[in-house]
Amino acid sequence: MSGSSFGKAFNITTFGESHGQAIGVVIQGCPPGLAIDEALIQKALDKRKPGQGISGTKRKEPDHPIIMSGTFNGLTTGTPIMIMIENKDAKSKSYDNIASLFRPGHGDYTYQAKYGIRDFRGGGRASARETAARVAAGAVAQLVLDQQGIKIKTYTLEIGGIRANRIDDISQKEKNDLLCPDSEAVRKMELKIAEVKKQGDSLGGVVQIIASNVPAGIGEPVFDKLDADIAKALMSIGAVKAVEIGAGTCASQMTGFENNDQILPDGFQTNHSGGILAGISNGDDIIARVHVKPIPSILKPQKTIDENGNSREISTQGRHDICAIPRINMVCEAMMAIVLTDHILRQKTLG
Amino acid sequence: MSGSSFGKAFNITTFGESHGQAIGVVIQGCPPGLAIDEALIQKALDKRKPGQGISGTKRKEPDHPIIMSGTFNGLTTGTPIMIMIENKDAKSKSYDNIASLFRPGHGDYTYQAKYGIRDFRGGGRASARETAARVAAGAVAQLVLDQQGIKIKTYTLEIGGIRANRIDDISQKEKNDLLCPDSEAVRKMELKIAEVKKQGDSLGGVVQIIASNVPAGIGEPVFDKLDADIAKALMSIGAVKAVEIGAGTCASQMTGFENNDQILPDGFQTNHSGGILAGISNGDDIIARVHVKPIPSILKPQKTIDENGNSREISTQGRHDICAIPRINMVCEAMMAIVLTDHILRQKTLG
Amino acid sequence: MSGSSFGKAFNITTFGESHGQAIGVVIQGCPPGLAIDEALIQKALDKRKPGQGISGTKRKEPDHPIIMSGTFNGLTTGTPIMIMIENKDAKSKSYDNIASLFRPGHGDYTYQAKYGIRDFRGGGRASARETAARVAAGAVAQLVLDQQGIKIKTYTLEIGGIRANRIDDISQKEKNDLLCPDSEAVRKMELKIAEVKKQGDSLGGVVQIIASNVPAGIGEPVFDKLDADIAKALMSIGAVKAVEIGAGTCASQMTGFENNDQILPDGFQTNHSGGILAGISNGDDIIARVHVKPIPSILKPQKTIDENGNSREISTQGRHDICAIPRINMVCEAMMAIVLTDHILRQKTLG
Amino acid sequence: MSGSSFGKAFNITTFGESHGQAIGVVIQGCPPGLAIDEALIQKALDKRKPGQGISGTKRKEPDHPIIMSGTFNGLTTGTPIMIMIENKDAKSKSYDNIASLFRPGHGDYTYQAKYGIRDFRGGGRASARETAARVAAGAVAQLVLDQQGIKIKTYTLEIGGIRANRIDDISQKEKNDLLCPDSEAVRKMELKIAEVKKQGDSLGGVVQIIASNVPAGIGEPVFDKLDADIAKALMSIGAVKAVEIGAGTCASQMTGFENNDQILPDGFQTNHSGGILAGISNGDDIIARVHVKPIPSILKPQKTIDENGNSREISTQGRHDICAIPRINMVCEAMMAIVLTDHILRQKTLG
Repeated sequence: MSGSSFGKAFNITTFGESHGQAIGVVIQGCPPGLAIDEALIQKALDKRKPGQGISGTKRKEPDHPIIMSGTFNGLTTGTPIMIMIENKDAKSKSYDNIASLFRPGHGDYTYQAKYGIRDFRGGGRASARETAARVAAGAVAQLVLDQQGIKIKTYTLEIGGIRANRIDDISQKEKNDLLCPDSEAVRKMELKIAEVKKQGDSLGGVVQIIASNVPAGIGEPVFDKLDADIAKALMSIGAVKAVEIGAGTCASQMTGFENNDQILPDGFQTNHSGGILAGISNGDDIIARVHVKPIPSILKPQKTIDENGNSREISTQGRHDICAIPRINMVCEAMMAIVLTDHILRQKTLG
Repeated sequence: MSGSSFGKAFNITTFGESHGQAIGVVIQGCPPGLAIDEALIQKALDKRKPGQGISGTKRKEPDHPIIMSGTFNGLTTGTPIMIMIENKDAKSKSYDNIASLFRPGHGDYTYQAKYGIRDFRGGGRASARETAARVAAGAVAQLVLDQQGIKIKTYTLEIGGIRANRIDDISQKEKNDLLCPDSEAVRKMELKIAEVKKQGDSLGGVVQIIASNVPAGIGEPVFDKLDADIAKALMSIGAVKAVEIGAGTCASQMTGFENNDQILPDGFQTNHSGGILAGISNGDDIIARVHVKPIPSILKPQKTIDENGNSREISTQGRHDICAIPRINMVCEAMMAIVLTDHILRQKTLG
Repeated sequence: MSGSSFGKAFNITTFGESHGQAIGVVIQGCPPGLAIDEALIQKALDKRKPGQGISGTKRKEPDHPIIMSGTFNGLTTGTPIMIMIENKDAKSKSYDNIASLFRPGHGDYTYQAKYGIRDFRGGGRASARETAARVAAGAVAQLVLDQQGIKIKTYTLEIGGIRANRIDDISQKEKNDLLCPDSEAVRKMELKIAEVKKQGDSLGGVVQIIASNVPAGIGEPVFDKLDADIAKALMSIGAVKAVEIGAGTCASQMTGFENNDQILPDGFQTNHSGGILAGISNGDDIIARVHVKPIPSILKPQKTIDENGNSREISTQGRHDICAIPRINMVCEAMMAIVLTDHILRQKTLG
Repeated sequence: MSGSSFGKAFNITTFGESHGQAIGVVIQGCPPGLAIDEALIQKALDKRKPGQGISGTKRKEPDHPIIMSGTFNGLTTGTPIMIMIENKDAKSKSYDNIASLFRPGHGDYTYQAKYGIRDFRGGGRASARETAARVAAGAVAQLVLDQQGIKIKTYTLEIGGIRANRIDDISQKEKNDLLCPDSEAVRKMELKIAEVKKQGDSLGGVVQIIASNVPAGIGEPVFDKLDADIAKALMSIGAVKAVEIGAGTCASQMTGFENNDQILPDGFQTNHSGGILAGISNGDDIIARVHVKPIPSILKPQKTIDENGNSREISTQGRHDICAIPRINMVCEAMMAIVLTDHILRQKTLG
C-alpha cells in the first residue's frame, strides 16, 4: 500500500530505484507564482552529492534535475511539479555477486521478505539515492519558507562518537567537508574516519537541525503534532535510529522546574522544548537532532546467509561512503523544510 | 486541518477535551468477527488510570468506556467502532485562576497562538486525558495482533535519571507502581520521587517498548517506514521528547562492523536494528524507547506572562502526577499496537 | 479499510448503526471562533426528521444532538467537534423475522458478503439513519459558508416520474411536505404517493441542489475536481443512482456551440456548466441533481433467499417511508455544504 | 492542495501539462510479481490515441510510455511505478493568439481565477491529454483485475443524441471508429458528425461501462461506497457532466417493486442496481454510464472576454476532436479498472 507520499497540504511522492532509469518526485500543493528553475534545484542537490571529500563514495552522479511539469515561464503554476533525475553512473555489475546474498544492516532481507522479489542493484528502492528526490522537493519547499523568512540550518554535531563542543558560529561548517562548525573536532573526526577506512569499516554520527523564525501556532493536535511529523520525517531517512526534539534525551533527566521554559514578557527564558509545546510551535527556534547509524556497506567481512538460508561471508565491494553524515545534513534540511511548509500551509485553512 | 486521525488501514480518530462532556475514539478498519466488550477496554484503561500510587494524580476518573457502535452480539462488524469515556470528575473551578495565564511547559501559549481561543480547563485538548482514547483503541488493535501471536511489553527503564540495570524478567514490573522490573532501581526512584514531591517539582523518565513475534516484511518504503510511523506515534504522546529504535543514540557511536546485525542461518546475531531494516520488520523483536520530559505542572513558582503579555508568577495547584512514566507505559503500548496493526493490515493488500 | 471519512481540509467521520446505542460524527478542520450550539444542529436535523407527512415513516426519533467536544463557551475551538445522537426509538423486534433474510434492494446481502457478519437491525450501518450524522456536520459546514455569503438551496424536482415544471420561486417548497415549489405538481405527487401506498409500494424522485455565491476558483485539478467531489458526496447517499452537474445528461445531446456558456463582460451567458469548468468553480451557481431510487422496503411480497440460499418470500413490515425525497433534500444540502466548505478551506492553502 | 492523487490502496498520482515536457503517473500499491512492460501500456494508450478516424483530432502524438521505476526484470516489485510519456508534437504557437482569451467551456477562466497564473498552451493541466496518464495506470490496474478474472468493457451508447439500440454483441464496436456496437446507429452518428464538422461545431455523447466477474463484497460504507468512488472517478474525466449507476436516472421513475432486484437462489432476477447495493458489489455486472458534453473547442465564433474583461470573439483554431466519445471509452475503462483494483485491495485488509 501507498507509502512513498508525505505531507497533507504540501505533499510529495517519490519514485525510483538506485539503478533504475531515474528517480524523482511529484510535488503537490506548492503555491503558484514562485520563481523556480533547475539551477535552484541543482544547487540543493550539489550539497548532498557524494564524492566531495574524505568521507564520500566514489560514485559520480551528475544529478541533473529536470523539471518536467508544474511550471510555466519560470513560475510555479499550482499544479503538480515533477522533478526527475536520471541515473547515469549506475554500475550494476558491481552488484551481481551479491544478487543472492543479504547484506547485513541493509534492506535486502526485509524487502525480500515483504515482496518476495527485490531489485538488488545498489539497494534498489532502499538506496540512499532516493534521498536526492527529497532534497529536490526540499528546495521547492524552501521557496515557501523564504516568503516567511524561515531559515533552516544543519550541522554535523558528532561523528564516530567525537562531539563538536565549540559551536559559536554555524557558518564555520562550510570550511570543511564534514560540515562541522568546530574545527578542532573536525580534525579528530578526520583522523577517526581515516583510521576506520583502513579497517574497511564505517562511522555514524549526529546531525543537528535548527529552524528559525517559525511563527508560533504551527502544528496540529493530536497526532499530526509538529514534533511528531518531524520525528516521522527524520526517522524515514534510511540510517536514522533516533530523533530528539529540543533537550531530547536530556529532558527526561531534569526536574519539571529545570526543564520548563519559563515565560518572560520578551519570550521564553530557555528553549528546552525545541520550540514546540503540545505539538505546536511557540515561536522559538525549532531544534531537532538525528542519530545516524554507520553505513552498513563495509569491506570488512561479515557473516550472512544467501536466499536459501546457507551461511555465507560477505564483503561489500561497491562504491560507498565511509560516513554519510555530511550528505545527511542536506537530507535533514530538506525534510525539515517539507514538514514546516506542510504545516504552514495547513495553518492557513483556519484563517 | 485534520490532525486527530492516525493510521491508514487501521485508522483511529480521537476527540474530546479534558473537561468537556467526553473523550473518545472512532476506529475504522478493524476486521469483523473479533470478540470485544467493554470489560476488555476497561482492563486496558485501568492500566493507565491515574491515582494508583506514589507518583500519580489525585483525579479519580472511573474511566468507564462505552462502545457506541461497530459491534453486534459481542463481535466487531467491520464498521466504525466508537468508544466513548465520559468526563465525570472534572473540577473546572481549579483552573479558573489560570484562565488567563500561560503555564510553562504546557500548550496554553501555543493553542492560543494557533487558534486565538482555547479551552483552558485542564489543558483542554492538550490534556494527557486524551491518551485514554488511544489506550481504548490500542486494546482493539491488540485483538488483531493476538490473532498473529504478537505481544507488546513495556517497562519503565528510567525515572529522574535513575536507570534500571537488572532487567532479567520484565514481569517483575508488576510488583511495583512504577512498572520497573529492577527492584533496586525502584527503591531509588521512589526516594527521588518523594524528595522531588516535597520540593513541589516533578520528574520524567524513559520507557522501553518491545514487540515480539512480528513477522518479517511489515512496513512500507520510503516515508511510511515502520520505524518512521513508530516515531510519529510515540512522539505524538504529549511529553515525549526523543524516540529511539534499537540501539538508537548508541548506534551513532559504533562502527558499521559493530552495529550491523550479522546474519546466521538461524537468525540475526544481534538486534541493534531494533527489528527494523530499511523501514521493514526483519522478524526480530521490535524495540523502541521514549524519553519523557517531567510533568510541567508543578507547585514550585515559575515565571510566566498573562494574555496581555504582563509578567506574572504561577504555581500550578491542580491534581497532577509527580511522574507520568507509569501511565505512559500503557500509552506507549497502545500506540505500538496501533502502528503494528495498521501495517499488518496494509501488508495484506500485497498478497 | 477506512471508508467512513470524507473531506481533506474539512473532514468528517461518521459512526453508528440504526439500532445501536448512537450515531454521530467527528468533524475535523472546522475553523475556530464560530458560534455554535445544539439548537443550530437541531434545526437542521428537524428538516430531515422522518414522520412529518404523507410520505414519511412512523419512526419517531427525537434526534437530539449533543455536542460532546470541540466547543468552549459556545464557540468552536478548532479541535474535533463530536456530535452524537442517541437512538431512542429503536424497535429491534420488528426486524427479528428478517434476521436471516436478505431484503431486495437493501445492503443485507452485500454486507453479509463483505464482512461475513451483519447487524441486521434496521439496516445497521447501511440505514438511512446514518444520514442524520451528515446533516449535523452539514450544519457546521454551513457556518463556514455563511461567512462567505454562500447559500445552498434544494428542492424536489420530481417524484414518481411527475416533474415540477413551474419553479419561479423555490421558497414555495416550504408550503408542502414534499418540498416541491410547483403546487400543481405537488397535488399530482400526493395522489401518486397515496395510490402507491395502497399497493404497498414506494416511489423515488429527483432533487435539485443549487449553491449560490460560490467564488470562482474553488476545486482542485485533476481528481479532486469540485464536480467529482460533489458526485462522490451525493452518490454516497444511500439511494442515489445518478448525479448530474449543470445541463447534465442533456449536455451530451447538445452541440458545442449550444452547450458552451459564452462569456460576456458581466458574466456567463448561460449556465449549462453548472458553475464548474475543468473541475473549478466559475462564480456562477453550482447546480447538481440527484436521481433517487424508490425506497426498497415495501409491503408488497417479493422473492428473496435466506442465508442458506433457500428461496423465500419477504414483505417488509418495518416503519418505512413511502418516498424519501423530502428527507433526502436535507441530506443533499448537507453534503453540498460539506464539499464546498472542504474546497474553500483547501483553496486557502494557495494564498 | 493535493488533488492529483486517486485511490487509497491502489493509488495513482498524475502530473504534466499538455505542452510541458511530459505527462505521467506514479502508481503506488501495485502488488509485486506482475509481468509488465511498455508494450502492454502502449497497447492501452493506442486505444485512446487521437487521430484515428472521422471524429478525431489531427495532433499526432506517438505516446510512447517509458516505465521509469518500480519494475525489475519485467516484473513489478511493489515499489512506485512511474510511467512517463514525453510531449513530442506540441505546437505551442497555435495557442499564442489565445494566451489572453478565455475559451468558453474550457478551464482557462477558472484556472486563472484559482491560481492567478495559467499555462494556456493547449489547456495546460486541464487538457484531455492528462487522461493518457490515467490510461497507462489503468493498464497496470487491469493486471490486478486479470488475476481475478474481472473484465471491463465499454462502448459508445450515444453520440449527438443518436442512441444505439441494438446491442447484442459488444465486440461489434471494434468494427468502427466510434466504438459503437450498433452498426445502424453508427451510420447515423457518422452523418451527424460530418454535418456538425462542416458547421465548425462539435458533439458529445454517452459511454456505457460494464465490469463483469466482480466478486460480491467490494466497496466500503459509507462515503467510499463503490458507486460513490466510481462516480468521482468518472466525473473527474474532463467533459463528463452526469454519471449513472445501473438503472440510473430511470430508477427514480420506477416503483420500489419495479426497481428492486428480487433475489432467486441462482442470483438476482434483474440488475437495476448496476451490481451495487448499499455501496457494495453484489456479484452482478457493475454498470455505469457517463454523459459527456460536446468538445468546447469549436471553429464557430463565440463570445468571450480577455483577461482585462473586454468583450471579444473567439474561434478555436487548434487541432481538436469533433467528438471525443471514442477516446473517452478508453479513459472510462481505465478509471473503472483503477477504482475496482483499489477496492479489491482494500477488501483484503479485512481478511
